[in-house]
Amino acid sequence: MANTWNAVVVWALRHGPRRPGRLRAEIGGISTKVLTETLRRLEYNGLVARRVYAEAPPRVEYELTGLGRSLLGPIEAFGAWAADHGDEVMAAQDRYEPA
Amino acid sequence: MANTWNAVVVWALRHGPRRPGRLRAEIGGISTKVLTETLRRLEYNGLVARRVYAEAPPRVEYELTGLGRSLLGPIEAFGAWAADHGDEVMAAQDRYEPA
Repeated sequence: MANTWNAVVVWALRHGPRRPGRLRAEIGGISTKVLTETLRRLEYNGLVARRVYAEAPPRVEYELTGLGRSLLGPIEAFGAWAADHGDEVMAAQDRYEPA
Repeated sequence: MANTWNAVVVWALRHGPRRPGRLRAEIGGISTKVLTETLRRLEYNGLVARRVYAEAPPRVEYELTGLGRSLLGPIEAFGAWAADHGDEVMAAQDRYEPA
């Protein structure tokens, strides 16, 4: 999970399957290129599954796998930490004087 | 925490203050340059404190701040996830066929 977008995209899929366009709108601030790369990486790691529906044109959806769902706990723990302590981190950054 | 070394170094400081040399030995596989940059970044974010002892030569130790200690929980959650599911991720990588 070295890439922050991995956690963002897994978290954004917590409520169920999403088409890329809707996923991008819900995340906000992610480019199509970065979202596509992230989804491909998550698929490669078995955290996300890609479904293609034989419609005209074909419909593509992404969904968390069981493995992906199991990651929601640790991601939530980090998210809660960031929400609780973000201000303290920024205050430390303001005070910082290089040694 | 986008940089994985951040979590590794915070975790390595969980048992108390460490001098850089010992920290590097205990982590293993991190260069002096990367460790120094990581410690500087953690200091900047208020997660680590740097102590200099007026000895000849001066002794330098790094220690988790309270903010740094509060991050051990989420890091442990991720570590446990990786330990529990690492094999599943690697199995998925073996099965992966690009769309």
